[in-house]
Amino acid sequence: MSEAAIVLLSGGLDSATVLAQAVQRGFSCHALSFDYGQRHRAELDAASRVAKLLGAVEQRVFHLDLAMFGGSALTDPQIAVPQAVSEGIPLTYVPARNTVMLSIALAWAEVLDCANIFIGVNAVDYSGYPDCRPEYIEAFAHMANLATRAGVEGRIMTIHTPLQRLSKAQIIRLGTRLGVDFSLTVSCYQADESGAACGRCDACRLRHRGFEEAGIPDPTRYQTG
Amino acid sequence: MSEAAIVLLSGGLDSATVLAQAVQRGFSCHALSFDYGQRHRAELDAASRVAKLLGAVEQRVFHLDLAMFGGSALTDPQIAVPQAVSEGIPLTYVPARNTVMLSIALAWAEVLDCANIFIGVNAVDYSGYPDCRPEYIEAFAHMANLATRAGVEGRIMTIHTPLQRLSKAQIIRLGTRLGVDFSLTVSCYQADESGAACGRCDACRLRHRGFEEAGIPDPTRYQTG
Repeated sequence: MSEAAIVLLSGGLDSATVLAQAVQRGFSCHALSFDYGQRHRAELDAASRVAKLLGAVEQRVFHLDLAMFGGSALTDPQIAVPQAVSEGIPLTYVPARNTVMLSIALAWAEVLDCANIFIGVNAVDYSGYPDCRPEYIEAFAHMANLATRAGVEGRIMTIHTPLQRLSKAQIIRLGTRLGVDFSLTVSCYQADESGAACGRCDACRLRHRGFEEAGIPDPTRYQTG
Repeated sequence: MSEAAIVLLSGGLDSATVLAQAVQRGFSCHALSFDYGQRHRAELDAASRVAKLLGAVEQRVFHLDLAMFGGSALTDPQIAVPQAVSEGIPLTYVPARNTVMLSIALAWAEVLDCANIFIGVNAVDYSGYPDCRPEYIEAFAHMANLATRAGVEGRIMTIHTPLQRLSKAQIIRLGTRLGVDFSLTVSCYQADESGAACGRCDACRLRHRGFEEAGIPDPTRYQTG
């Protein structure tokens, strides 16, 4: 029987590549997506399609009402989504998002008796997010091993971050090699209901630039007009 | 203006004492309770009463569907609640519960720009829970300071655990001094709808023994018959 892994799957380009890699490495992958009050559902629709196509053994969507607290352009309608790449911590940062998501992945991992969690954090393109840095991930893994029954019993929980030091272009080349159909993924912060991207927000700009640098045609469906 | 704190408030004896102490120390307390698929609502009703009476500035209930994953006698109807204090990690352990709750407290703390989280963990009576140990709490605090905008900007998040090294009897004496009405709190794993306790589960036994050792009459309402 192959080893189990929880894979955080947003429906974006990065996490789809992570799932493809975990599957290719032989893990039996349980995909975990979050409904955390995103402005659109297209990202979650993309996550289910991607989970099926890349061969996850199951996918679950966990409801997480972080919008209750506000504080991010991604969940708070009173904060506008920024239209350009900005310095420092972006307004689209959701408070403690990776910590909350990894914690819930940890809960599921304990129930499944699974010692592997995959997350598509990436310190290069998103250096403004504190919870994407390698030192943060190491601290989470250390905490997780003290938090859990498995840790107490000496089984080590590993947080896999295969994209940690890759540029967006390198991620796109890796995903392409692994057979990810990026036209199915949604990265845009303000995609429409069909998943078509705005082409103007931070995420769209980083993604498009990544395809250009990778020398791969951008398959993203953009909104027209 | 007084300093803000998030206080995790379950409706039990321990967290009520923690809230009383945080209020007495002058913190402006935002109480955070979780609806995580507990078998009964009495604990959440107790949490609202306690929050009001002890002077929290607000209380919020966060819905957390940990029952979706199963794995604990507290949330999984297929696992029976144990009737006696057992060795090792109890069946009533909810996978990664403190990690998930502290992570969500961290998200709220970031939004409120608040640098204090209070949690009523206690390593003496509940030594079977890995996520109640001081080394776990230290690891969480370290991770939290790497995870957050505040941490990046040099403001230190403190996880306060005032009950960490107290026995149940010492907690009861402390709460009594601080004016906590313990008859309002619910510790029982299988309380009825009115909040009356079974008197037989782990939590009831530890609580009753605590009152005996403290030399304080046990005000708990027990189920009759």
